[in-house]
Amino acid sequence: MRTDILFHQLFEAESCTYTYIIADKKTKEAAIIDPVLETVDRDLKLIEELDLKLLYVLDTHIHADHITGAGEIRKRTHAQTCVSQKAHIDCVDIPLEEGQELKLGEKVIKVLSTPGHTNTCLTYYFEGLLFTGDALLIRGCGRTDFQQGSSDKLFESVHGKLFKLPDETIVYPAHDYRGMTSSTILLEKKFNPRLRETNSQDDFKKMMSELKLAHPKKIHEAVPANLACGRTKENEN
Amino acid sequence: MRTDILFHQLFEAESCTYTYIIADKKTKEAAIIDPVLETVDRDLKLIEELDLKLLYVLDTHIHADHITGAGEIRKRTHAQTCVSQKAHIDCVDIPLEEGQELKLGEKVIKVLSTPGHTNTCLTYYFEGLLFTGDALLIRGCGRTDFQQGSSDKLFESVHGKLFKLPDETIVYPAHDYRGMTSSTILLEKKFNPRLRETNSQDDFKKMMSELKLAHPKKIHEAVPANLACGRTKENEN
Repeated sequence: MRTDILFHQLFEAESCTYTYIIADKKTKEAAIIDPVLETVDRDLKLIEELDLKLLYVLDTHIHADHITGAGEIRKRTHAQTCVSQKAHIDCVDIPLEEGQELKLGEKVIKVLSTPGHTNTCLTYYFEGLLFTGDALLIRGCGRTDFQQGSSDKLFESVHGKLFKLPDETIVYPAHDYRGMTSSTILLEKKFNPRLRETNSQDDFKKMMSELKLAHPKKIHEAVPANLACGRTKENEN
Repeated sequence: MRTDILFHQLFEAESCTYTYIIADKKTKEAAIIDPVLETVDRDLKLIEELDLKLLYVLDTHIHADHITGAGEIRKRTHAQTCVSQKAHIDCVDIPLEEGQELKLGEKVIKVLSTPGHTNTCLTYYFEGLLFTGDALLIRGCGRTDFQQGSSDKLFESVHGKLFKLPDETIVYPAHDYRGMTSSTILLEKKFNPRLRETNSQDDFKKMMSELKLAHPKKIHEAVPANLACGRTKENEN
């Protein structure tokens, strides 16, 4: 049990997305990571029950598989929306870059740039917890074949940056499709079939090039909406 | 981050069941709680990757909505199966009762008898984490209309026993259907619509009597199988 921070993981079943709420227990200042539009009511209710002051809505990247809840949450709270500055989104309150720190009470969320799944992917580090988006999944990783994806960059992001963190760092990804809810840097170094330490960059690139995946069902709806902070024709106002 | 214990939560999507792996980090002695037959391979792979010595397979109760993985796990490991002694199941290795303690390295799992959803429901307490089965769900509770269920007993189990634990105790239930993964005793005392502290035993009994739920789809298959430690005609040997 951590007595100094607060942590809640939430799951959206259609897109298999994990949303996270983190807070400094003392000041009750909080952030939500990767909210999904369809579950905003649930998430805001929990934030209210926990009596938190929501400061930030953090997206790890411009999602292609679901519409972010960021815009809707900003509309209903005082929280500021945060996305990589590389995405050049006008409606974002705080464009983020590598090394930036966001204060959460007496603690900080550290921003790591981890491109490769998309060119704007960020990873957030908070008190031993690592929110990796689609850069590093549990025994997997995000695809690299659209949204300026790059297998070379993803390999460098994971091996050159995430795998340099302490082994016991807990990995919380944006998705899981097999019911796993967390991992650690050590487990991924040893057992990630694509990105484990014994795989070379060439091994990884070959694996990724052979995936031949269909595009996500929602990509043509989700990407434009997410470039507008989750606004769609239906929820525009 | 806890450095002395290890904890993993796993989800089985068809029955919305949570399975848990807990361990003492020093000795690597471990237990699995409420495994599901269909996800035994996944769970044992994780246990192997974590290099754990699985000592116990704990079921919180005789499930009606899925077949336990207990028998299958015992067959493939040296783990002992544990269920309430009130269930009178011959194939169980360690019949459990109120107050019993199971050693996990230098720590203990404490057994609490929490009848009401069924007459054999147990809750497991381990280092500030509470595995409540279907006795206490997140903002809900298990039904009380079959398997010797009793709304009176469930109210007494939750108010008289679980709500006496420290407020910050983390609640990990056997199921969630809305993507919530954990709660705390404080949150349930305040916000559980059926069992919150301001509800009387009569309020609760009235609510439960008005639910009029259909029986779980798998009840006629799951209960007999679980009374045989998860064995079915198909997996018998």
